[in-house]
Amino acid sequence: MIIRAVPKLRDLELRLSRLEEELHLFQRISRLMVRESTLQQVLQSIVALLVEYLECDSCIIYLTDGPQLVLCASNAAPASAVGRVRLSMQEGLTGWVARNRRLVALSRDSFNDPRFKAFSELEADTYEAFLSAPVIARNRVVGVLNVQHRQPHSYTGDEMELLTTVGEQVGCLLLLARLDRDALERTLSIEQILAGGVLAGSV
Amino acid sequence: MIIRAVPKLRDLELRLSRLEEELHLFQRISRLMVRESTLQQVLQSIVALLVEYLECDSCIIYLTDGPQLVLCASNAAPASAVGRVRLSMQEGLTGWVARNRRLVALSRDSFNDPRFKAFSELEADTYEAFLSAPVIARNRVVGVLNVQHRQPHSYTGDEMELLTTVGEQVGCLLLLARLDRDALERTLSIEQILAGGVLAGSV
Repeated sequence: MIIRAVPKLRDLELRLSRLEEELHLFQRISRLMVRESTLQQVLQSIVALLVEYLECDSCIIYLTDGPQLVLCASNAAPASAVGRVRLSMQEGLTGWVARNRRLVALSRDSFNDPRFKAFSELEADTYEAFLSAPVIARNRVVGVLNVQHRQPHSYTGDEMELLTTVGEQVGCLLLLARLDRDALERTLSIEQILAGGVLAGSV
Repeated sequence: MIIRAVPKLRDLELRLSRLEEELHLFQRISRLMVRESTLQQVLQSIVALLVEYLECDSCIIYLTDGPQLVLCASNAAPASAVGRVRLSMQEGLTGWVARNRRLVALSRDSFNDPRFKAFSELEADTYEAFLSAPVIARNRVVGVLNVQHRQPHSYTGDEMELLTTVGEQVGCLLLLARLDRDALERTLSIEQILAGGVLAGSV
């Protein structure tokens, strides 16, 4: 019993340090949400945080623009791809995630998945492992958050849950970016709130 | 070394389970932010989640209404207090937190603090321990989040950090509640986002 406790101790310490890092990630995203920044800066910061935490080779945030998904932030794509790489909701694994509002996790050979579509300008299209979650706002899909590893990588349940939550937080950020000055100055009275001021999701 | 490992193992297991609960709390709050609900329902759900996680006797969310703070959700106050208990920013520990935009943590005798002010209708005013964080939106204070324990309780750094983050998430919720239908339907073009669509915080 006691002799076995030592390796278990190491496992626990590792898991503990991983959870602390994950909590720290959420705290940093939360802090980004109340600070003064442009949406573009915040999206780029979120990509950097995810790359650091997940140790992935590529992280891309796509946002919907009408019927298309547009690359809006990435650590891996060239700057010229931002705002220019567009895909239809019908295309690729990313389109599948947006259409189905479901997470996809592939540990290897993601480029052999029948849903896969290559983009010649994205080197990430040769990466083995692929994790993708929808960006949700107002209870609908407004983007897709992709993470890729060059080498095979089995995504854990924690990593999937993490990307789902970050997808929700990015959705909130998108809505906040739509608030214009008028809306910000318009005070929502306490009476309105208590009478059932309706959250964005329910419209 | 090995004999000592067993109690350490138990400590680690406890800390691990605590961190898992905290992560779960953030995930549940994040899910509340994208679901269809009224703000009042969401605030009440956040109070319930905090009471469960912190095992506190009282949790109250105050929101600013002009120069006052109004009680908007609570597990402990009678329903009649919601929307009716108001305090000036100059009053009490809660007012101090709002004015100074700083966390307060008192492990005992909170009612003897010189900043304390009693409200005859809130039983929570006899509680020993008090933890309070500002609610932040657009980089300014829009409310206060209070947690109280009837018995003395030393708040940990993790608990303080948690309340700070929940205060930020509540601030985002408040902004989201201000989005009217027009704002929601107004599509923010990708060009606007990439050109520096400005987040709420920076106005």
